[in-house]
Amino acid sequence: MTILRVNMSQKTISTETFPKDQIIGGRAMVDYLLSEYGSPTAHPLSEGSVLIVAPGLFAGTSAPMSGRLSIGGKSPLTGGIKEANAGGTAAHKLGRLGIRAIMVEGKSEDWQILKVTAQGATLEPAGDIKGQTNYAACDKLRERYGDKVGILSIGPAGEMKLANSTVGVTDPDGRPSRHAARGGLGAVMGAKGLKAIVIDDTGGVPRKPHDQEAFKAAVKAATEAIKNGPVTEALHTLGTAMWVDADNERGSLPTNNHRLGSSEKYQNINATKFVELIKARGGSLGHGCLPGCVVRCSTVFHDTSGRFLTAALEYETIGMLGSNLGIDDLDAIARMDRKCDELGIDTMELGNTIGILNDVGLFAFGDAKKAQSYLEEIEKGTPMGRILGSGVVVTAKAFGIDRVPAVKGLGLPAHAARSSKGWAVTYATSPQGADHTAGGVAVEHLSSEGQGDRSRTSQIQMAAFDSTGICLFTFLRAATNVIVPMINALYGVNWTEEEYLELGKEMLRQERAFNMKAGIGPGADRIPDWMRKEPLPPTNSVFDVPQEDIDAVLNF
Amino acid sequence: MTILRVNMSQKTISTETFPKDQIIGGRAMVDYLLSEYGSPTAHPLSEGSVLIVAPGLFAGTSAPMSGRLSIGGKSPLTGGIKEANAGGTAAHKLGRLGIRAIMVEGKSEDWQILKVTAQGATLEPAGDIKGQTNYAACDKLRERYGDKVGILSIGPAGEMKLANSTVGVTDPDGRPSRHAARGGLGAVMGAKGLKAIVIDDTGGVPRKPHDQEAFKAAVKAATEAIKNGPVTEALHTLGTAMWVDADNERGSLPTNNHRLGSSEKYQNINATKFVELIKARGGSLGHGCLPGCVVRCSTVFHDTSGRFLTAALEYETIGMLGSNLGIDDLDAIARMDRKCDELGIDTMELGNTIGILNDVGLFAFGDAKKAQSYLEEIEKGTPMGRILGSGVVVTAKAFGIDRVPAVKGLGLPAHAARSSKGWAVTYATSPQGADHTAGGVAVEHLSSEGQGDRSRTSQIQMAAFDSTGICLFTFLRAATNVIVPMINALYGVNWTEEEYLELGKEMLRQERAFNMKAGIGPGADRIPDWMRKEPLPPTNSVFDVPQEDIDAVLNF
Repeated sequence: MTILRVNMSQKTISTETFPKDQIIGGRAMVDYLLSEYGSPTAHPLSEGSVLIVAPGLFAGTSAPMSGRLSIGGKSPLTGGIKEANAGGTAAHKLGRLGIRAIMVEGKSEDWQILKVTAQGATLEPAGDIKGQTNYAACDKLRERYGDKVGILSIGPAGEMKLANSTVGVTDPDGRPSRHAARGGLGAVMGAKGLKAIVIDDTGGVPRKPHDQEAFKAAVKAATEAIKNGPVTEALHTLGTAMWVDADNERGSLPTNNHRLGSSEKYQNINATKFVELIKARGGSLGHGCLPGCVVRCSTVFHDTSGRFLTAALEYETIGMLGSNLGIDDLDAIARMDRKCDELGIDTMELGNTIGILNDVGLFAFGDAKKAQSYLEEIEKGTPMGRILGSGVVVTAKAFGIDRVPAVKGLGLPAHAARSSKGWAVTYATSPQGADHTAGGVAVEHLSSEGQGDRSRTSQIQMAAFDSTGICLFTFLRAATNVIVPMINALYGVNWTEEEYLELGKEMLRQERAFNMKAGIGPGADRIPDWMRKEPLPPTNSVFDVPQEDIDAVLNF
Repeated sequence: MTILRVNMSQKTISTETFPKDQIIGGRAMVDYLLSEYGSPTAHPLSEGSVLIVAPGLFAGTSAPMSGRLSIGGKSPLTGGIKEANAGGTAAHKLGRLGIRAIMVEGKSEDWQILKVTAQGATLEPAGDIKGQTNYAACDKLRERYGDKVGILSIGPAGEMKLANSTVGVTDPDGRPSRHAARGGLGAVMGAKGLKAIVIDDTGGVPRKPHDQEAFKAAVKAATEAIKNGPVTEALHTLGTAMWVDADNERGSLPTNNHRLGSSEKYQNINATKFVELIKARGGSLGHGCLPGCVVRCSTVFHDTSGRFLTAALEYETIGMLGSNLGIDDLDAIARMDRKCDELGIDTMELGNTIGILNDVGLFAFGDAKKAQSYLEEIEKGTPMGRILGSGVVVTAKAFGIDRVPAVKGLGLPAHAARSSKGWAVTYATSPQGADHTAGGVAVEHLSSEGQGDRSRTSQIQMAAFDSTGICLFTFLRAATNVIVPMINALYGVNWTEEEYLELGKEMLRQERAFNMKAGIGPGADRIPDWMRKEPLPPTNSVFDVPQEDIDAVLNF
């Protein structure tokens, strides 16, 4: 197993051996490499900053839904450590090439493509790929490198080094519809002069488990567990849009710039409507974004004339660019989603960003045309576009807005903090910023009690789970009894579930240590003050988890 | 003695008694009141944020040059505690009215003026003062409230709540040429809906010392010490422009966006040239910005046709808007200085901000017209103006610039960090951000040794000194033997010099505690990485004070 070290300043690539039995992958690899090589004091866009690409522990194996790819670095939005992961085909390709991580250092003056094959890795001039939006770039890259490559790419936003830039990853259809979206890692990649990473696994081989029979059995058990999962069938038939109804019902669907927790118009953007439009227009449901996906929650959405518009229109996008902007037109939301994928912009951060403009009269709820026009400003790189592309905190600063929906520089997710209080404790305390995938808490949403403990348990489980590369929608986060046998069989170890969870704890410790060195103290673990005062209809709840419970979350 | 508590939300004013013998003033009062009443987690522009106005310990007395006025709050630029002080006439007026501080809370929807007189304080509608630049606003306020008032005001930048906004204070000529400039406290005032504070001390009385004779003697000794100060004569005859030659000579005059430490064209902007122009055009030197000033370093600068252009064109402005932008035209610098005073913009932050635009081709060194046009963008509130008015860190973010001259969000001063290494340790460690007035170190500029100790000593002395309201240019910061007798005689105590310095330590402890609660950890105590790598000609020095020395500075 190897780690590719790419120095963009010198345009050199070296290969370092990584011990085969070392159980570090995905987010754990990000944490490990950034702790070892990443400078917490370096500016995220500087030569001294480090970008990590790391498949999970099971990449290149038959472990179900284990093809999530972690991208990591110092976030331009939070100023701290960030890992964001995406589906697509790239992770397994890296796994089959025996590559455990790509570490990109330095900075190239001219735009480059990193090509990774079984014969080795090379840097090549980006040429006319430069300046292209993600879909066009991927088309051109396939022309150049063949149809079967997996591609990581940045769009114009990443090229402009805007803080809210994503890294796109191609799905099985070759579309850059999957994004390591949160935290602005596209800008880090852009600052390095790296437009794309193209992975061709021709000649690669599946990874051999230490104990093949045991691994096969463990994989089978995991696959069964996923099939029998609580929402597997619903996700498969409805997509993640299913959460529109659920969150609206319990008052945690951000609506009109977080002023409401439910929308009167939710039936225009919920799964029922979504499925109806897809069926009428010939899009598709039950799509897999990873090879061998069991859940297949991904979707393809066509426009009114039946032509492909966007893939992977997810709940968080519908919440933040839809209800949070008062927009109840799925076509308009889908057009923005596509544009975000093209430019390489995180839809969640953008939904927060446009939402606050309502406070200063620059956006009227429901004005989808205006919202779309702001995306065009970003594309053109106008000063307004640069403000918006820099995320919600910078936008608030530029316009003197003090009601800012963000923690540690990262805009809030679409499960409203005030009516998802356990989850909100994760938003407040995660070293990753307000990230809903850092440890969800989906019980006792309105209670202020016990949420610190719930968030701690969830964050530890989730960190460990994020090392595996297994998709969150397996709902196996807490099923350590299912995960650990696969690790043991693959790596030839004899881990207990406690040892596995200790990995999660160690990851969180490393992340907090990085943030401390970067200047972010524990005092930053706060839900914005205004959410403790302003009730959120219809539950009229405020965020009222005691601060001492919050401060105790990561004290292990 | 009283503290005025002004609630802008309720439009109420209450008066609280403050113990006469309590030795808390100026920056110490800011620290005390923010520790007691200020919420470190509140957004700086929110209702829960608190703005403090506090004269020093000697306000209303005959202590020489003791009329500095501290403005304090949570900084929109640093996110931490900030105190900025200015000369002018307001502090002594407050002293003569027996007011030890004004604490402004809440938020008014419509613009207000706070009027403070011997008969009490009232809030009045700002009316047509709203939207006015500082000079025009002060003219109108004098029409309304009489010629003898002292005025604190914000300009359009503060009204727009731009993070780099100042609070202007009128000088003895009634001009708003003195600014509590650093850290964006004008935006905090603007967020409260407070356009100006007008102070009429008619009927006020000088403060009575506890021991009149002893106080008189102590004041006399202090006055003598100032008269015999090391640079009193030079400051009086040359103004602070005298530092152009000194800093240029030792390679610490920021030039061309901090790429050089000296300018070939320094003779076009130094004191010799400055004095020559003033003498030829009928401006004036040896001006006092405080009543009863001994040093009188302030200046009045006329334009080519002999008309008043600006007052108080200081070294830091000449350095940051002049040499740092490659501009060697004092008239152009003076026009920008005036515009900054009109809009209420900190010249130092702005010089850093425009300077980095050179990195992305948006500013050519020496292009004074372009620099001036950027000020006009700020005035108009265009998106570009809002970016620039939000300071150097936001501007860097919007344009993807990673070579950022700032610490804790505050742009660097005009004594270059790499060739003023002790001073730079203060920039790195001060809870106030990169503030040159937080504890200068003016010896062994190029040595990396002993700078932590020097900075610690200087910061403690300076904090205590900032409580007194005495001007830095008395050069009495370290003369605790001169200061303490004045305190003892005025307050009827028997402080040792150690007790006085303990006040400074306690202030720094309070400030650090505030910042910790605001989420700013000790890891933020860093000079930007690039200054440790990029040599600064002509000394070619890098910043190389060991980080452990820096981390030990505030460990008391």
